[in-house]
Amino acid sequence: MKIALDAMGGDYAPDSPISGAIEALHLFPDVHLILVGNEPIVKEIFYKKNGQAVQQRVEFLHTSQVVGMEDPPIESVRHKRDSSISRCVELIKKGEADAVVSAGNTGAVVAAATVYLRTLPGISRAGIASVIPTEKNPFILIDSGAIIDSTPENLLDFGIMGSIYAKKILGVSNPRVGLLSIGTENVKGNELTKSAFKLLSKSNLNFVGNIEGRDLFENPVDVVVCDGFVGNVVLKTSESVATAVVRWLKREFKKNPIRILGAILAKGAFESVKKKTNYEEYGGALLLGIRGTCIIAHGSSTPKAICNAIRVAREALIQNVNHIIIEEIKAHHELIEEHKRTSLPIT
Amino acid sequence: MKIALDAMGGDYAPDSPISGAIEALHLFPDVHLILVGNEPIVKEIFYKKNGQAVQQRVEFLHTSQVVGMEDPPIESVRHKRDSSISRCVELIKKGEADAVVSAGNTGAVVAAATVYLRTLPGISRAGIASVIPTEKNPFILIDSGAIIDSTPENLLDFGIMGSIYAKKILGVSNPRVGLLSIGTENVKGNELTKSAFKLLSKSNLNFVGNIEGRDLFENPVDVVVCDGFVGNVVLKTSESVATAVVRWLKREFKKNPIRILGAILAKGAFESVKKKTNYEEYGGALLLGIRGTCIIAHGSSTPKAICNAIRVAREALIQNVNHIIIEEIKAHHELIEEHKRTSLPIT
Repeated sequence: MKIALDAMGGDYAPDSPISGAIEALHLFPDVHLILVGNEPIVKEIFYKKNGQAVQQRVEFLHTSQVVGMEDPPIESVRHKRDSSISRCVELIKKGEADAVVSAGNTGAVVAAATVYLRTLPGISRAGIASVIPTEKNPFILIDSGAIIDSTPENLLDFGIMGSIYAKKILGVSNPRVGLLSIGTENVKGNELTKSAFKLLSKSNLNFVGNIEGRDLFENPVDVVVCDGFVGNVVLKTSESVATAVVRWLKREFKKNPIRILGAILAKGAFESVKKKTNYEEYGGALLLGIRGTCIIAHGSSTPKAICNAIRVAREALIQNVNHIIIEEIKAHHELIEEHKRTSLPIT
Repeated sequence: MKIALDAMGGDYAPDSPISGAIEALHLFPDVHLILVGNEPIVKEIFYKKNGQAVQQRVEFLHTSQVVGMEDPPIESVRHKRDSSISRCVELIKKGEADAVVSAGNTGAVVAAATVYLRTLPGISRAGIASVIPTEKNPFILIDSGAIIDSTPENLLDFGIMGSIYAKKILGVSNPRVGLLSIGTENVKGNELTKSAFKLLSKSNLNFVGNIEGRDLFENPVDVVVCDGFVGNVVLKTSESVATAVVRWLKREFKKNPIRILGAILAKGAFESVKKKTNYEEYGGALLLGIRGTCIIAHGSSTPKAICNAIRVAREALIQNVNHIIIEEIKAHHELIEEHKRTSLPIT
């Protein structure tokens, strides 16, 4: 399989993507990579990092432009057609790559994938499936920011795709799907979630109903479905709270010599939690619902994170995730059509 | 001033509200309380807890019904007219109380206040202003769940009311107001926030623009404005993440004898954080925008939390918060009317 890697994407690019690429090539003998970016620079780093050993499974594609982390997504697709992100996605369109991995500007990746590849049959909007660690098992949050102002049908699609992701990539046998809302009863929520609740209830999914923010980290479900606006706020707020609490505790630990001694003795506790919540292990989010496999890695991806993102791309290809999504969406076709006929438009 | 206290509201009622009432009466000599609930029971507990010392400033109002934590809000207002919540709110309507404090079913309190008291002139919907602790200063999250499916005008009202709360109750001199969204640029967000951004930018507020979930706990603003659905999800998710992280760390601390020793030495660190994040200190959320002063205390309120909720009610009355809100809303009248004329309806 061929995976296009955005060598210019992320805070530590091109160094980190290239190191991650070499790691992945060593680990997965069936993976071929196309390193997309400023070719002279990429090549120089690649060979400096002893890429020679795996060079048979690498190609380089030169691009003259880079999308910055703050560039407006749609503009970047329109005006930076020779960016590493656009070129990566184009490789899928041309059939020259099976998947793309980028730690670059998330919005730009979503925009490029949507514009160049379009969505899978039966799906109107793509969703980002992020893996959120908890003390027990991770859960999937979908959509965590691909689209905003979703419809109930989008939310059903997210449930279907998230469930397939949980099954095929995380190995959960019968994933429990929950709808993020502000009360557990079916009558609670906004217009969007109330309508989505009805749709999800009639689906083939293992839908357990509404779940609240307060329950998220108690592992009541494997897949959390929500609008991209809410999902993005939840994702970023959760990261922010966790970071703030740990930092605060660490500062409190330094306030007197006895606490400092305690902190030294208990250091391993912080490290265990840090390790288990480390985004590097999860390899980035999958943009689900597009004609192609697209992994959005964390902006601050280390080589390990990039390597894991390549692993997720590889698994999605091996498991044929997109094919299963198409079949499942087909199976829900009647339900969606009936819902459209009987519902008033909500926006 | 006379404050009606829902003696039957909260997980530890009637014990906890009554103890909190006695504490508050000792602390604030200008406060008179009306204890609303099952009179024989309330009276018995009140005198058992040595209420005699403050009994001159206490009245009792008997009610035969109680709203449960899981009762549907609107139903409870319609069918439990003799509940402690409904009677408390009615006392304000009749002019027999200046404020109400309840740790009962939040939705029922909001519904009763909205139905019996209605909103202040110029305000179409009330919002819940919750105080969220951080390592440095707390911030106000408004609306944290009073209404869902808000309009841009509602969000402007929340900004105005939250700013007044920050100034008058938290003592912030020129409160910075931020709009919760999914990117810091003004073009980012959903239809609601993009439209609200324009309105807030033209207001008299110290509006600093969009803020993201990732920044919330870095204290970039004093007031966070958002839709009640999003606010409720953020509030509950934040509590849930903080609890989960602390619990997880504590469990890690117990994994071997050295860590246990470390944990004992550093125990004070956890206690400091716990103390500063303790909702008891903040005394509950203020339901802003209604014709009356209404404090919604935490469901699991201790006597201390109830006492602080009474303190907040007292301060809101002394500071004449509602009067200032009416004036500020008046000052924004032109802006709101112009916005309505020039905007397309978004819902």
